Amino acid sequence: MKATGIVVEHNPFHNGHFYHIKESRNKTAADIIIAVMSGNFLQRGEPALVDKWSRSEMALKAGVDIVIELPYVFATAQASDFARGSIALLEAIGCDAFCFGSEEGTIEPFTNTYEAITTQQQTYQNLIKQYMKLGLSYPKALNEAFAEITKDSNLHLVDLSKPNNILGYHYVEAAYQMNACMKPFTIQRIVANFHDDVDESQSIASATGIRKAIFEEGSIGELAKFMPKTSLDHLLTWKDSVGVFGSWPQFWPLLRFTIIRSSLKELASYAEVTEGIEHLIYDAATKSETFEEFMTRVKSKRYTWTRIQRMLTHIYTGFTWEALKSHQNPTYLRVLGMTNDGQSYLNQKKKSLSLPLVSRVAATKDSLLDLDIRATDLYQLGLQSSKIERPIGLDYRKTPIII
Amino acid sequence: MKATGIVVEHNPFHNGHFYHIKESRNKTAADIIIAVMSGNFLQRGEPALVDKWSRSEMALKAGVDIVIELPYVFATAQASDFARGSIALLEAIGCDAFCFGSEEGTIEPFTNTYEAITTQQQTYQNLIKQYMKLGLSYPKALNEAFAEITKDSNLHLVDLSKPNNILGYHYVEAAYQMNACMKPFTIQRIVANFHDDVDESQSIASATGIRKAIFEEGSIGELAKFMPKTSLDHLLTWKDSVGVFGSWPQFWPLLRFTIIRSSLKELASYAEVTEGIEHLIYDAATKSETFEEFMTRVKSKRYTWTRIQRMLTHIYTGFTWEALKSHQNPTYLRVLGMTNDGQSYLNQKKKSLSLPLVSRVAATKDSLLDLDIRATDLYQLGLQSSKIERPIGLDYRKTPIII
Repeated sequence: MKATGIVVEHNPFHNGHFYHIKESRNKTAADIIIAVMSGNFLQRGEPALVDKWSRSEMALKAGVDIVIELPYVFATAQASDFARGSIALLEAIGCDAFCFGSEEGTIEPFTNTYEAITTQQQTYQNLIKQYMKLGLSYPKALNEAFAEITKDSNLHLVDLSKPNNILGYHYVEAAYQMNACMKPFTIQRIVANFHDDVDESQSIASATGIRKAIFEEGSIGELAKFMPKTSLDHLLTWKDSVGVFGSWPQFWPLLRFTIIRSSLKELASYAEVTEGIEHLIYDAATKSETFEEFMTRVKSKRYTWTRIQRMLTHIYTGFTWEALKSHQNPTYLRVLGMTNDGQSYLNQKKKSLSLPLVSRVAATKDSLLDLDIRATDLYQLGLQSSKIERPIGLDYRKTPIII
Repeated sequence: MKATGIVVEHNPFHNGHFYHIKESRNKTAADIIIAVMSGNFLQRGEPALVDKWSRSEMALKAGVDIVIELPYVFATAQASDFARGSIALLEAIGCDAFCFGSEEGTIEPFTNTYEAITTQQQTYQNLIKQYMKLGLSYPKALNEAFAEITKDSNLHLVDLSKPNNILGYHYVEAAYQMNACMKPFTIQRIVANFHDDVDESQSIASATGIRKAIFEEGSIGELAKFMPKTSLDHLLTWKDSVGVFGSWPQFWPLLRFTIIRSSLKELASYAEVTEGIEHLIYDAATKSETFEEFMTRVKSKRYTWTRIQRMLTHIYTGFTWEALKSHQNPTYLRVLGMTNDGQSYLNQKKKSLSLPLVSRVAATKDSLLDLDIRATDLYQLGLQSSKIERPIGLDYRKTPIII
């Protein structure tokens, strides 16, 4: 059985994701699609709209055969670590290929770019540092450095100012660096712009646009044309049974409490908190009744919104620099769910997997997994939903979804 | 002007406190009554029903002339440290006497007891340790040790199984140990039992009984006969403007979140958390939806309810063993409120006070004071009241109450 891996967040699952799965299957002639999916906290540094089991089920009902969890450490990391964790898991589970959506749409520019950068690695890294010293954010510095080292190149290179191109580049980079057996593929993303609002005249909208519609208009029903019915049903079921969706505004009372309770020294100990920004974070938290107010006070040219949100995620979950440094690579394959085909695939492969398969959390002792369990608990508490009867220890009670 | 000090929590102010103030004034022929009062967290290890300013105002309207705050470090400490902090402040503000309520009612048994214990200090401490090793709680071990060393004494000694006698003993001990100029006095407590429920046939009820009535029956109005009208009015105003009273059940969502967010190592770093009880605390928090459930799981013969609650207070506020050890003595006199007479007294004495007077927090930099400011903020957040518009930084905004 031939397997192709994809890296997903599905927050929430929409027609663009459906297209990504279908095209990945076609393009790579795959029998099995394996998705490595972020848990309850995402790469943009925010809590997921609905939990990882709901999102897994959406994926399984829309064409994915196996969902494995990207551990917290990688799911909430900057692009290169996010990609390294994801690709390592897809390689470990035995995928023959991986396929990502990009603005670019063809794979050669990515491999060209990887070669262009690796041959001038030192110059490139120095340039990034220089641009960051000038006050540029990391993505902007990277972009400028890249433009600088490739200004005389004739090759078709990838435009690294596009967010999905950057991620895609890091997937390719990770695969090369770990000498992965998987072959890289990319498909063209068909959503016009990353931050597009929901436009009812098109049937593919970005997840960002969809989330905005969920929160601002409060009418999930209107999203029917942008996502499979099975996904919409999951959102409606969640709305009924939990009452609220995950978001920083929802988590703000607990996040604010956590910031105010922490000493400046503690704040500075959390991953990604650097250069004295703990003072600003503390001060803004004391003054801000809402998350929006807080972000208005904290945002600056120096840090992207996403970077700040990642700091907040780590403050919220108590995830320190020390913990970040002590977890460099995935240590297990955690199955969140699978179809019958997925199950057959795993049965066939289980002896050749390069990482242990975790389907029952209670049977495994792993510090990386402990972080995921804690993240789930803190996500559940953050929802502050009185409808949830037993918010804690879900990872111990849930078995992999099989559909 | 002759001043007498009292140590109070007034949670809430009731007729027993009124009697204590009046009798202290009479017995010591005082012109001025100075109360050292706990802030928003109390010696029993719980959040106060209403904040320190409301409680100060109740006291000032019922006969106290000056209220100074007992810093968090001492207010939430075990009896001997609580007493040492309190007595040090009353001495520093120039009191001529201090007067406490006790089951005993006369002062000689306290001084006799102090002498009996100090002459056999080493034996006494060893006996306490032995009894604790046998599994007795600290108060019980102290009691047994005391019975042992005084079994052949002819002197009238104090019964240290009574809670207010224990506190009184520690006041006397603290005063002797710091060679205080103040003279000790005691008056008989007229509440029958510490944990009595409200009994409508008597006009003095214990604060514990009153709190129970407030929470269980939800009818503050019925408490009119147990407290001065001014105090009742304050409770009603608080109820109107805040909506809820401080208590662990109210603070439980944030306390539970804090416990679950903490690593076991962090839990063990908080003051009073000893002997591996962090495992039990963490485990119980994961399983308990309510504070009552949690306490049922955590309580044991080894630790008193109060001791466990003090651990929880320190976990909640992030107050560590390290912070506890680095703050041995009060470093300032923080005035929460005063009457005109109180103000005259301070004007007269201000040059001879042995600690700096703090009336504006923003003008003072002191790590002990920082802990109080944080405790206020976390108390305000714990109430989770949507009626509070600006919960944070109250210490910076409030000036001393003057009535």
